[in-house]
Amino acid sequence: MTAFLAEIFPQVKNDFIVDHLDGENVVMRMRITDSNLRPGGTVSGPSMFALADVAAYVATLARIGREALTVTTGCSMDFMRKPEAGKDLVAKARLLKLGKALSVTDILLFSEGSDKPVARASMTYSIPPKR
Amino acid sequence: MTAFLAEIFPQVKNDFIVDHLDGENVVMRMRITDSNLRPGGTVSGPSMFALADVAAYVATLARIGREALTVTTGCSMDFMRKPEAGKDLVAKARLLKLGKALSVTDILLFSEGSDKPVARASMTYSIPPKR
Amino acid sequence: MTAFLAEIFPQVKNDFIVDHLDGENVVMRMRITDSNLRPGGTVSGPSMFALADVAAYVATLARIGREALTVTTGCSMDFMRKPEAGKDLVAKARLLKLGKALSVTDILLFSEGSDKPVARASMTYSIPPKR
Amino acid sequence: MTAFLAEIFPQVKNDFIVDHLDGENVVMRMRITDSNLRPGGTVSGPSMFALADVAAYVATLARIGREALTVTTGCSMDFMRKPEAGKDLVAKARLLKLGKALSVTDILLFSEGSDKPVARASMTYSIPPKR
Repeated sequence: MTAFLAEIFPQVKNDFIVDHLDGENVVMRMRITDSNLRPGGTVSGPSMFALADVAAYVATLARIGREALTVTTGCSMDFMRKPEAGKDLVAKARLLKLGKALSVTDILLFSEGSDKPVARASMTYSIPPKR
Repeated sequence: MTAFLAEIFPQVKNDFIVDHLDGENVVMRMRITDSNLRPGGTVSGPSMFALADVAAYVATLARIGREALTVTTGCSMDFMRKPEAGKDLVAKARLLKLGKALSVTDILLFSEGSDKPVARASMTYSIPPKR
Repeated sequence: MTAFLAEIFPQVKNDFIVDHLDGENVVMRMRITDSNLRPGGTVSGPSMFALADVAAYVATLARIGREALTVTTGCSMDFMRKPEAGKDLVAKARLLKLGKALSVTDILLFSEGSDKPVARASMTYSIPPKR
Repeated sequence: MTAFLAEIFPQVKNDFIVDHLDGENVVMRMRITDSNLRPGGTVSGPSMFALADVAAYVATLARIGREALTVTTGCSMDFMRKPEAGKDLVAKARLLKLGKALSVTDILLFSEGSDKPVARASMTYSIPPKR
């Protein structure tokens, strides 16, 4: 999966690490570098979006196989706490539904070592029809 | 809490039952009657919205006390499976954040007796400032 | 379309009126009765959800024809102002996308006669594959 | 406003251009460079999120003045079409509500020169209380 991600997301291949993966749950880590930070040291919104999106993609592809054409069609996020600057960001994702046409994944984001979520997200992926 | 709900939501006072309530988690049940059904026997979207909304309200008020002016400011929902017609709908809600101005609650809805969620929701409530 | 709605939503057939309908835009009105009100006279969240949902359904079916199996898969709403108690609620909906598998509709809700939206919504409908 | 953005978002100061700004509407443009692209040439989700988020921030700050502590608390997005690779991305944002504690902005994203939206977004910003 890590090799596939590196192929699909070449610009960010060293940023995301899969810590755990089973049929329903994914734990992913994002290495926070200066390019992810806003003034004041907080992780930017687009970086949090990127991690949630990749975690949902991995949760879906772990089940349906390598389908690069699987695309995000919808997302909602709530930003709840300020991430800690010096810490990696960790996504705990759960695949709530895998249908023929759509998957829905719920994601909580944490600063590493904390149990208070910094954000929650839901991501809907559209799955291409079988040819 | 049940008495307070009956006061605030007189039209629906017999529809919602609090099954479990602690500082972070709420389990609520909605009695499904004909008025909640669509043709084909499925529970209507507005009924699912109503249960998720009330569960988030209860999760918030369990912590801040009776604040009838606490109002929903945002929600997102994903409808994932068809609820079973003859079953009550059960909401499992978790208060993810309680700030000074906002609360955020995550909710999964199930047909009673099933462990596959029929829908997920996030509800944001605005909390009135202390006078 | 009004006849079709009455067939699909028998419980609410007198509540919704289509004021305008073209290939991209729908204006619908919801008659507000006591059953839609909360204490204080405001229109309930589930009633606003119901109107937004029906408006998106009408916007979609106006294009694809009577497909009762078209179902809501996702929604997001922001509740921004208190609706006026004695006024009908008006939805101005715009179909942003009609794909093979999904439609996306944007909806603003107004108290009749006001130009300040009381809520916004986006509704995603899943469209059944052609047999 | 452009100078203020460059101060707040130093990493991206050359990426965003304000094309139009009045009390309710903002048109912003994002210069698309290789770092915003995914394989196949499409603009990445995080880049679209970033543009929508900045447009809502500008719409809010145009009214309340420079308040760097104004933060995103919620967002929803629908991704509807594939952006064109060689085109700038344009956000048309409308401030739907400016309250004491929250602002809500609706955003449509377009590939420059097209009138079919590639995505829609709603962004909620939390406004710090007056000291």
